[in-house]
Amino acid sequence: MQRIIIATAAALVLAAPASAQESARERIAEEYPELELVYVSRVNIGAPLTIGETARGNRRLIPITGGSFEGPEMRGEVLPMGWDWQLDRGDGCTQIIADYFLRTDDGAVINIVNAGTLCPPDADGNPRPARTSPVFEPPLGKYEWLGQGGFIGTIGFDPAASEPHVVITVYRAK
Amino acid sequence: MQRIIIATAAALVLAAPASAQESARERIAEEYPELELVYVSRVNIGAPLTIGETARGNRRLIPITGGSFEGPEMRGEVLPMGWDWQLDRGDGCTQIIADYFLRTDDGAVINIVNAGTLCPPDADGNPRPARTSPVFEPPLGKYEWLGQGGFIGTIGFDPAASEPHVVITVYRAK
Amino acid sequence: MQRIIIATAAALVLAAPASAQESARERIAEEYPELELVYVSRVNIGAPLTIGETARGNRRLIPITGGSFEGPEMRGEVLPMGWDWQLDRGDGCTQIIADYFLRTDDGAVINIVNAGTLCPPDADGNPRPARTSPVFEPPLGKYEWLGQGGFIGTIGFDPAASEPHVVITVYRAK
Amino acid sequence: MQRIIIATAAALVLAAPASAQESARERIAEEYPELELVYVSRVNIGAPLTIGETARGNRRLIPITGGSFEGPEMRGEVLPMGWDWQLDRGDGCTQIIADYFLRTDDGAVINIVNAGTLCPPDADGNPRPARTSPVFEPPLGKYEWLGQGGFIGTIGFDPAASEPHVVITVYRAK
Repeated sequence: MQRIIIATAAALVLAAPASAQESARERIAEEYPELELVYVSRVNIGAPLTIGETARGNRRLIPITGGSFEGPEMRGEVLPMGWDWQLDRGDGCTQIIADYFLRTDDGAVINIVNAGTLCPPDADGNPRPARTSPVFEPPLGKYEWLGQGGFIGTIGFDPAASEPHVVITVYRAK
Repeated sequence: MQRIIIATAAALVLAAPASAQESARERIAEEYPELELVYVSRVNIGAPLTIGETARGNRRLIPITGGSFEGPEMRGEVLPMGWDWQLDRGDGCTQIIADYFLRTDDGAVINIVNAGTLCPPDADGNPRPARTSPVFEPPLGKYEWLGQGGFIGTIGFDPAASEPHVVITVYRAK
Repeated sequence: MQRIIIATAAALVLAAPASAQESARERIAEEYPELELVYVSRVNIGAPLTIGETARGNRRLIPITGGSFEGPEMRGEVLPMGWDWQLDRGDGCTQIIADYFLRTDDGAVINIVNAGTLCPPDADGNPRPARTSPVFEPPLGKYEWLGQGGFIGTIGFDPAASEPHVVITVYRAK
Repeated sequence: MQRIIIATAAALVLAAPASAQESARERIAEEYPELELVYVSRVNIGAPLTIGETARGNRRLIPITGGSFEGPEMRGEVLPMGWDWQLDRGDGCTQIIADYFLRTDDGAVINIVNAGTLCPPDADGNPRPARTSPVFEPPLGKYEWLGQGGFIGTIGFDPAASEPHVVITVYRAK
């Protein structure tokens, strides 16, 4: 394995004496990866196709019909192909796996598989945030960094929009 | 699809007039998901098995031989089974896919598939952070939240350790 | 694990004396799973989108634009969504992963992920058969057996057809 | 897409006049892919670890502790690593996903992911055959054909064996 030594005191937490642990915890705090915005996207969706009960649970298929995305380093359109292949699970959450393509304004076509969960409000009635783990496959070159990082997505809706859509915002862990 | 309305102004950025965009950007800034520590783990590894060149690139197999993890809400051991199935890619990075199991101190067995990349230093010789997208499959109950969120992992090494290992730290996007 | 005892002498081949091995080999011969036709499909395809070189190799995306399938126990249409996400590999073969949906004439929507390889002719110039491992996810009920078996697909072309297509024939291992 | 023209009359079935259909059906019959034996393996298994109910259903983990395989073109050992990650599904079947490694007697290490189902007897009490879709990742060279074909696996047990095991027999579609 490539030995890329990354300065980290994290390991010390596990086996160090108390004072060392304290300083290790401080250093972890400093080294928390930060999230930076990659893009905000509006993904338009078509009428859901009900698959119904399968051997793994209830499924539906939500076609992706287009959209757009914009961020500090990339912008373009969502191609009108792909879908979200949803599964209602035993923990009360709906698993989403959205598989589709972005085309940047300079012509790169990038696959995104965005998996995560939509969960009901917690016991106190508070909404639970919807977080995803987007995985990209870009061509080499300008956007290859999309294939190298760890990313977090959020799922939201634009209250002002009239057509069916989701707002997917993607962040990169620096 | 379940309509879980999550307060977000993100979508406005795409289509709003200038002043609205400004305020939307502010709101996004406020709504950035934060990362909170789930655990720090030490994953012990055995001697790599060289697979060699495959149809997809050069591969090696790194056995996972045990370890431990500790965090604010969970702690326990890494089971001595599983491996990191690495692939050297055309972008100069090594893709890691580590598939193994955690056993908590109260007996839950949790699968983790931790995928990410180890990349060489950038053009200026600066190390590039190694970030992963861990995906968990826990039993229902106390740890089911591990199956619902978006997570980021980091890869490091403990300079003080004598045996082969990696330090994997996992964060949850709140 | 469920102990579904299936009569098989196969294991004896590994550890039995010579005469027993002979009879075991005979029994294996008798127990070879046979392939039975599930359906023949014509899958229409759109113009390929060139992705270009990625970290895993050269990729292209071939949209699936519709089609039909017919077999002894099922018939219907190929939905105009989905694609074949191809990868040129280091063994000279092109890996295909076609992900799309069938809709039967009685309304069931069934996901198929059909993975396999297209390889160049062998050293003697003879064509090499293209074989795939289709995996189905059907709703429960009439077609649930599609989610339970082992399947083999073949890839061909209809010389008489004028529009771009592939002929995918699917067999089930009895 | 590479245009590897494979002689097939299959497509004609869909759109040809009656007499042509008849002859096409005959030709399909002749072109049925045949299954040829790749190997018979005995895969030794350890005590199952109960995971319990998850968001996707009840799971258990069956460690793979070693074994051997033998066939006309390859033989060797099953490495003592890997597992079968089982899921009890809503169709009454248990989904198996066994992920492990073979080492041939000439030193190649080959990954196998063997997915399939174990289903209860049918309504008449007859056992249902257990069929899988093994997918291999071999190094380039002598065994690279394992990464190019379509394969079918069967699952059995050796009544004469005293230790926990499964007999996995693998066939290739010619």
